[in-house]
Parts: sequence; C-alpha cells; structure tokens
Amino acid sequence: MQLGLSVSDSDVSSFTPLVVLELADDTKAEAITWLLNRIRDKQKNGGAELLVDQLLFPAQDGQKSNPNVFVVGSTLQRLLKGAEDVGLFKEFQDGIMRGFTYANRESFKDFYGDGEGFLSDAECQYIIKHELDTLRAKNEEHVPGYPKVKLYPGKSVVRRLQSKGVLVQYFPLHNKEDLKRLSFSWYKKIKLSFQPLDDIRHYFGEGLALYFGFLEYFTFALVPMALIGIPYYLFDWEDYDKYVLFAVFNLVWSTVFLEVWKRCSATFAYGWGTLSRKKAFEEPRAGFHGALGFNPITGREEPVYPSSKRQLRIYLVSVPFVLLCLYLSFYVMMVYFDMENWAISVYNENPNFGTGILLFVPSIIYAVVIEIMNLLYRYAAEFLTNWENHRLESSFQNHLVLKVLVSLATLLITSQILNQVMEAFLPYWLQRRRNKKVHKRMRRVMGDKELPLLEQVQLETEMNTYLGTFDDYLEQFLLFGYVSLFSCVYPLAAVLVVLNNITEVYSDAFKMCHVFKRPFSEPAANIGVWQLAFETMSIIAVVTNCALIGLSSQVKAYFPESETQMILIVVAIEHVLLAFKFILAFVIPDVPKDIQVKLAKLEFDSLEALKKRKILEAAET
Amino acid sequence: MQLGLSVSDSDVSSFTPLVVLELADDTKAEAITWLLNRIRDKQKNGGAELLVDQLLFPAQDGQKSNPNVFVVGSTLQRLLKGAEDVGLFKEFQDGIMRGFTYANRESFKDFYGDGEGFLSDAECQYIIKHELDTLRAKNEEHVPGYPKVKLYPGKSVVRRLQSKGVLVQYFPLHNKEDLKRLSFSWYKKIKLSFQPLDDIRHYFGEGLALYFGFLEYFTFALVPMALIGIPYYLFDWEDYDKYVLFAVFNLVWSTVFLEVWKRCSATFAYGWGTLSRKKAFEEPRAGFHGALGFNPITGREEPVYPSSKRQLRIYLVSVPFVLLCLYLSFYVMMVYFDMENWAISVYNENPNFGTGILLFVPSIIYAVVIEIMNLLYRYAAEFLTNWENHRLESSFQNHLVLKVLVSLATLLITSQILNQVMEAFLPYWLQRRRNKKVHKRMRRVMGDKELPLLEQVQLETEMNTYLGTFDDYLEQFLLFGYVSLFSCVYPLAAVLVVLNNITEVYSDAFKMCHVFKRPFSEPAANIGVWQLAFETMSIIAVVTNCALIGLSSQVKAYFPESETQMILIVVAIEHVLLAFKFILAFVIPDVPKDIQVKLAKLEFDSLEALKKRKILEAAET
Repeated sequence: MQLGLSVSDSDVSSFTPLVVLELADDTKAEAITWLLNRIRDKQKNGGAELLVDQLLFPAQDGQKSNPNVFVVGSTLQRLLKGAEDVGLFKEFQDGIMRGFTYANRESFKDFYGDGEGFLSDAECQYIIKHELDTLRAKNEEHVPGYPKVKLYPGKSVVRRLQSKGVLVQYFPLHNKEDLKRLSFSWYKKIKLSFQPLDDIRHYFGEGLALYFGFLEYFTFALVPMALIGIPYYLFDWEDYDKYVLFAVFNLVWSTVFLEVWKRCSATFAYGWGTLSRKKAFEEPRAGFHGALGFNPITGREEPVYPSSKRQLRIYLVSVPFVLLCLYLSFYVMMVYFDMENWAISVYNENPNFGTGILLFVPSIIYAVVIEIMNLLYRYAAEFLTNWENHRLESSFQNHLVLKVLVSLATLLITSQILNQVMEAFLPYWLQRRRNKKVHKRMRRVMGDKELPLLEQVQLETEMNTYLGTFDDYLEQFLLFGYVSLFSCVYPLAAVLVVLNNITEVYSDAFKMCHVFKRPFSEPAANIGVWQLAFETMSIIAVVTNCALIGLSSQVKAYFPESETQMILIVVAIEHVLLAFKFILAFVIPDVPKDIQVKLAKLEFDSLEALKKRKILEAAET
Repeated sequence: MQLGLSVSDSDVSSFTPLVVLELADDTKAEAITWLLNRIRDKQKNGGAELLVDQLLFPAQDGQKSNPNVFVVGSTLQRLLKGAEDVGLFKEFQDGIMRGFTYANRESFKDFYGDGEGFLSDAECQYIIKHELDTLRAKNEEHVPGYPKVKLYPGKSVVRRLQSKGVLVQYFPLHNKEDLKRLSFSWYKKIKLSFQPLDDIRHYFGEGLALYFGFLEYFTFALVPMALIGIPYYLFDWEDYDKYVLFAVFNLVWSTVFLEVWKRCSATFAYGWGTLSRKKAFEEPRAGFHGALGFNPITGREEPVYPSSKRQLRIYLVSVPFVLLCLYLSFYVMMVYFDMENWAISVYNENPNFGTGILLFVPSIIYAVVIEIMNLLYRYAAEFLTNWENHRLESSFQNHLVLKVLVSLATLLITSQILNQVMEAFLPYWLQRRRNKKVHKRMRRVMGDKELPLLEQVQLETEMNTYLGTFDDYLEQFLLFGYVSLFSCVYPLAAVLVVLNNITEVYSDAFKMCHVFKRPFSEPAANIGVWQLAFETMSIIAVVTNCALIGLSSQVKAYFPESETQMILIVVAIEHVLLAFKFILAFVIPDVPKDIQVKLAKLEFDSLEALKKRKILEAAET
C-alpha cells in the first residue's frame, strides 16, 4: 500500500497528527481506499477535506502490529472553517462572545497572523471528530468490499463502520509538550493555588474543565461545614440543641452553594463560549438517526426524528422499565433481610463455627447479586437511552445519568438508612480497586521521556478509554450524600470529604494525563443533570435530618407526654426549611448580572442585524 | 386661544382622536403652548411628532367645563414608525413573528396598501402613550410658567406634569363602532362559544386578553372537579376513602392545569407578538428614574439605575417592612381571639341581650381594623414598590402584587384554617359592593346611542379609571384557594366557582366595555407573578388537605392504637404528593414544541444575520 508513510520514510507524518483512526487489521483494501478518499475529498463533494496518513509499525518482538492505523490532521484553514461549522463562540474585539465566522476571523480578539493558536488543541480535535462523525453516506449502497454493511443516504459512515467492527476505535492524540506543561502547573508542583482551569479546558475541553471546577468549588464549599463540624465532634457530642443548629446551617448552606455554583458555571461557560451556543443549533450526535430531512430551525439537511416518538419511547418503555427495576431491587433487598433473619435464627439456635460463617453468607450473596444487577442495569440503561434516539450528546448523557442515578440513589438512601453501608459500597470499591490496578500498570509503561510518534500512537492505542465524567461525578455525589443526609449525626463527615477531595484532585489529574487515552472534548455549558441530582439530594437531606432529629432521645425528652406534638413540630420545622430552600433557590439568579447583560446584548444586536438583513432582502427583490 | 377647535368650527377634529389629555383648568397658557409644541415637534428635535387639538366645550347647565382638554392622534406613518420604536412583533410573510421595521413594512403578513388596519387600536394608543411618556426634558430648567416645577435632562415631562397636578389625566378614547362589535360578539348574544380573545386583545391589549383567557381556561379546568364533586356531595358524604381519592385527584389536576396554562399563555403570547419581545430591550416605564446614561444592551440613551441599589432597597427595606406587617396582622388576630374569648366568657356568666350584642363586637372591630390596615398596607406597598424604582412596568406590577398577596394570602389561609371565613371576606365583599354601585350609576349614563366626540370625551373623562387586573386576578385566586385548600371537606366548591365564573365573564366584560375608562394596553407575555401565586397556593393545598385528612375521625379510626403511626403515614403521603407535583411541573415543558421551534428559528436567523453583518462591517473598514 502506497498510501501510508513507512517508518523508513520519516518518523513523523507531514502534518500535525491530531486524531488516530484504528481499523480492524483484516479490513479489505477497497474499504480503506474508499474511506480515506471520503475523508480527503472536498467538502462540496460530501467529503471531510481532512489530511490522513497511514502509520506502518515495524514488527516488534515477533508480534505483528495492526497495519491499519491512521493519523488524521488538518490544515489550519480547514480547522477555522470547521470552527464555524460546529458553531464555536469566541471573544470578539468588543469583549462580547460571538459566533465565529471564517470570513470575519480577523475581528476576533485572539486572532493573530494566520490564526495559529487561535483554536485550542481540544477544539481542533473536537472539530475533526465532528467532521468525521458527520461524514454521511451519499449514494453508496454498502461499504466497498463489504456487501453486507449496508449504507443509507444521510447515515453516519463512521458510526456504521464502528458498529460493524471495521473501525476499531478513534481517539485524539496527546500533545506531549502541552501535557508536560499542563501537568506541571496542575499537580506536579506543591502549591497553594487554584487549578489552572483555563489550561485544562484548553487541553481537555469544557466538560472536564467543568468537572474539575466543580470538584474544587465543592471542596472549598465544604470547608465552612468542616470547620464548624470539628468543635461539635470534639466537645458537644451530646448537646442536641446545637446539633439542630448545625443541621439547619448545613441545609441552608448546601442550598446556597448549589445555587452559587450555577452562577460560577455560567461565568466559566460564558468565557469558554459554550453558554451562548444554542443546543438547537448544534449538529446532532453521531448515534442520532432518522430520515434525512431539514432541521426546522437552521434549515440544514440532517436526520430528523419526531420528538413525540421519543417521548412515547421514554414514557411507555424507559420509565416503566426503570420503575420495574426499582421494584426488583427493593424485592431483592427484602429477600436479603429475610435470609439474614433466617441465618441469625439458625445461629441463635446452634451457635458454632459453621453457623457463624453462615451469618456472612446472605451479605456476600447480596453484594454479588447487587453487583451483577447493577452491571446489567447499566447496560440496559445505555441500550434504552440509545434507543430513545436523542439528538444531542448532552441530552443523551442526561437521560443516561438520570436512569442510573435513580437506581443508585435509591440503593444508597435505603441501605444507608438501614445501616447497610458496606453492602452498597462494595461494588463501588471493587470498581475503584480495578481502576487502581490499571493505574499502576500504566505508570510503569509511560514515563516522561520523549517518544517518537509511532511509539506514542502504539502506546496510546493500548491505553484504556476514559468513559466520561460519570464515575467521577458519582463519587462526589455519594460524598455529598454522606455530608448532607446525616450531617446531624456525623459532624465530621465534611472534614473527611475535604481531605478525600484534596487527594482526589491529584489522582484525577494524574489519571487524565497519564492513565487513559485522551478523551474528545465535550463542549458543556453546565454540569447537566448532576445539578438536578445534587439539588434533589439536598432536598432529601432536609427530610432525613428532620427525621433523625425527631428520633433522637433528647428531643423526645422535651415532649415526655405527647409524641404527637413532637412529630408535628418536627414536621412543621421541616416544611419551613423546605419552603426556605425553595425561596432561596428562586431569589438567587442563576446567571450573574454582567453575563446576563452580555447575553442580552448579543441577542439585541442579532435581532437588529436580522431586521436590517430583512430590509436589504426586501430591497433586492 | 387659537390652538383648539371650537365646537362651532367642527364637531370632530381633523384626525382620528386616540388619546385624551386633560390639563388642570388653571394651567398657564405658556405651559400649554410649550407642551403642545413639544408634542408636535419633530422627533429629531426631541419632540413626539404627534397631532394634538384642543377641545372646547360649551358651558352646560351654567357649569363651566374644563377648557384644557386635548385629543392626541397621529398620522399612520408616524404610528408605524412608533411601532418600530416600541419593538412590536408582527407576523412575517414566512409565518414567524419578527420585530416590525418601518422600512420593511410591506413584507409583513397583514400589511396592505398604506398599512391601514395593520396596527390594532390598542397598539396605536399604546404607541402614543409610549411616545408621550418618553418625551424627556432637554435643556429646559423648569416648565414655562411654573418656575417651581423643575425639569432635569432625561426625566419624563409627562410624569413630572402629572406628579405636580398640571396634567390631571390622560387616557385612550373608546372607539364606539369597534366597541359595539366587540361587546356583541363577547357578551351580548347568548351563545355556547369561547370568548373572542383576539378581538379583546385587539381592543384592550394583551394584558386584559390574557386575564379573560385565564378566566375562561380556569373555569373550564374546574369542570372535571365540579363533575366529580357532585356525586361525592350527593351520595358518599361519609366515605372517607373516596374523599382521599378525590383530594389526590384535585391536587394532581390543579398542578397539571397550571402547567398547561403556561403552554396556552405562551401560545397566545407568541401569536400576539409579546412572547418574543425581550424585556431588556423594552423602554423603561414612565416612573423609572435615574441619571441619564446608556442602556448597556441596546446602547440607547435612557435613565440608568444600578440594580444593586434596587436589591438593597428590596432586601433591606421592603422585605423587613412586609415581614413586620405580617407580624402585626398576626398580633391583631391574636388580640381579636382574646377579645372574643373574653366576650364569650362575659356572655356565659350573664347571658342577656346586652352581652349577646357584645358577642358581635370583637368581630366588627376586627373587620374594621383589618379593612383599615389593608388600605394602609396597600398604599405603603405601592409607595415602596415605586421607590424600589423598577425599570419595567411588568416588574413593578409583579413586586407590587407579591407584596399585597403575601399579606392577603396569610390572612386568607390563617383565618380559613381558624374557620373565620366571614371576617376575612368582609373587606373583600365591601369592596365588591362599592364596585356594584358604580356599575349601576354608569349603566344609567351610558347607553348605546351614538355620541358626538365632544360628549363622548366629556363622558369618558368622568368615568372611573380601571386600576388594572389586580382585583380580578385576586378574586380568581381566592376562589382557587377555596377549591384547592379544602377540597376534601367542601366537594361542592368547584361547582360553585364554575357557576360564579360564568357570570363573572359577563360582568367583567360589561365592566370593561361600559363602566370604566378604556385602559391603555399592557403588552403582557404571561400572567406574571399570579402564576407563581397560583402554584404556591396549590403547594399549600397539599399540606392543608393532608392535614384535614389526618384530622378526620375516620382516618383516626384506622389507627386506634398509634396516633404516631397515623401521622407518619399522612406525612409520608404528603411528601410523595409534593414530590409528584414537582416532577410533573418539571416534566411538562412550559412552551409547546412548535413555538419553541419558531422562537429558536428567530434566534438562529438573528445570529446568522449578525455574523453576516459583522463580516460586512469588517469589509467596510
């Protein structure tokens, strides 16, 4: 094959390689030729107009490497045009974020010369991914060489190849130099400073930068709770009056900090250009399918899928399925309790070593069953969410997270209340341990030494794929659950979470830089459904804290005669707290005033420009 | 004075009179000349460029009429330009609502010929009001002839004259012919059809049309509750099981219908062009003051007032004041209960006619005190809201309504719960009776006969001013309170409210057409803070209904041993209901899909036009 660069020609390809495409090693030559042509072809012919080269690895240790590995790059001009296609927002001369246009590139703030450095690395890779994803079948009936891999006009070619196993994977390459600089400023020096969020965003994109921003913000927000918690732990363990005060402070504080986070994230997202980007204008995600039609808003040709059908799928299939699974998980829990009661009774009748071991059997069975059920449920949730056919990646993620969370949060809360902490967390810890193993292995393989491109690609091809921020957010969510749900009985929880999170920043940073494949950037404007999850948790926390306070013997001692009166008072306080939470959330604006003004100014300018445009159009006819 | 038309010249002025201006009858001639000049002056000289004529009334019955009554009108061209100034949205050729521009007028859907009939009557009057309101002082130091009535650059001239009593009033004139047509289709014929909301909006503007739309919607929404309530009333008065079902149905239903109303009102408001109008772009209300500066969004010159100052005024003065008043009203209520207990004890000790009368004294005193307190509170609320200096009329109204409602709703709920229905409603009924009297008087005066302009103006000048939709919404709010708060004990409430509202439509329609001065149009996009009020009420209803069910002897009979258990179950059910309400509200989108698409399309087109405009601008430089 004369397409690729062999190692003997040159060690590096003739352009900056940004994305790696790995095809199956038995891919038919005609399919490869066809795909590369489509990628290289001009946009007006339906191609992606990108640069692509083959990498040929020498045989190592007698083990033959996959010959079908390609690197994709692009000219600067093509990237800038792609930035317009994907609708990036950049800072204009006047300080307002505006939709980037190639024709007007020189009027944007950080555009110098030919535009080198104007787009971040993550943005370039995101643009290439977008162009590859939107490479749609034209009149081909099937992939050349694969009569069974049918193609339909308008369907994503890359998606098709991926689902049929022809395309094994594609991922963005690390940039060794930038990575070195980033990791140094991020976690390698000992320092008392904030994380370099702008640099993280530059390298990994907005989605991850928002996660690390949230992690930092959350940790700082817990410091007041931690500081107040310490004296409670040290001195007044038994003074319930003060505990009530402490719990009320925690509840109000958790509301305030979640509201203020919305403002912070709006400020970040505005500066990064993702807040102004409108979802409806975004291109659909690669997995989205439907008959080829026209987007009613943008007028662009793209797959169209009626939202009423999606609603039907959600409400008639997904929701009942999730409810059924919830019911099933409760049922299994009940069976477990029965088993445990039976084991205890057997042990009580005849206490010896054998029946003593029997005591642990129900817990072990339960933990294993839960682990398997969770795994199955997560597959099912992913399948269902995919089948719901969401147009946008963010909406897909939100629905997926919501499904998984409903089952997990229920598990968490019920088992916490029933003091079954270990069982619920065993699966989680198992998962974590597995990750740690991967850590160690990778640490061995990857030092900081400079690697030539071929070796770098080979190494990164074998690295594990980062599956998104789900598990990271989940961990923070569970920690938040500990702090808020039971704040009045575990005053030290916040302290422990703060300590955990300080190490978490370092380990997560290391993981992103050295353990996983570099992920594609997700242009997120907020933390999505996690905001809802945290807020819901803080509402549930009001209920559990009031219940715990009501259960305490000290509070009961205040109302020796009437338990009813005590309950009514606790319920009344709970209602007042809930009302206060809602008023607070209502009163604190979600977007800071100055960002509101800037967004409104963009909207006003746009409407004015539209008016003028329509006048011009009318004058022309 | 040679400015005006005397009756002998002509009965009608040379243009269609739209708005009447009444100055005090002792206004100095130089002030009149100055004001008329300002109104007539070209826009580029800072005038309003409107037509204005004096009306001279002949002396009647020896009673001299006010000579300083003027009618204001406008050329069609000026009105169309004004429509662009105020930012009206009209349907474009392509079916999308777009900001109207004079230059592109021919491309709008209902624009024929010179544009006669393109703007509704209410819109024309709204435009004239807007132009008069934004007539701002230039370099005049004071009103000519009134050295004490100082003027400051940028302050509204009309507002100044009004606050100093020089301008007695200004109001829009009725259009006899349109009114006749409207009243016929609205309430004069017996029919089974919906109200002609588009015609109402055409004549009275969007604010009132939304009120009548809400009234109709609310009434229809109550029909299912009423239908279910009747058999409950007739057959199963004592069957509590079914009552619980009934209450749960009511609670869910009230959530659904409030959510669906948002969608209906969005559909109305989109068609009327108020949904797309952005608040931030609107001109400030006449009472808004501040140093003359530039609006950061539109770049237009207008008074500027920092919102942080407003926030301080709201949170440091208004909120504490409202809370203080709430406390006071509770205190007065407690005093009333003490008085009543004392009166009962006196009567029990010595039951005769004198002490029998004494029984009524506390209630009478309380009713009178509450009436006076409410009156004072409403004045104070209006003063405070004015002082908070809101930029927009809608935000002024929302803050005012919220203040009044907090005090009133508290009164309603507490006194309802304490079964003091009469006392709370006495003030309300007194008010209502007063309105009825006015009804009758006006009915006598105004028949349907054609009146010449002079008499019409004279008559309408003396009519009462319609003070806005506050009292009308308040009545519906209280009715909604009856239906929802105590649905499980008064199953017939919905029936009564439906019957009341059917007559309400007719009496309100008559009132608007014949009793009050025609009001200026309010371009509302929704029912504002009333939506919040109704939703809050439906949340409180969950609490009261659960409490009432818990109190019932039948439910208590189910739990003969443990009152605690019963309360806990009722509280749990209440929480589930509340959660369900929030999920419902979250799941039902506020704006129907097709309107969302149209709004997004406008936004997309605007952003695209802005991009092109910026490219053109860059090319020019």
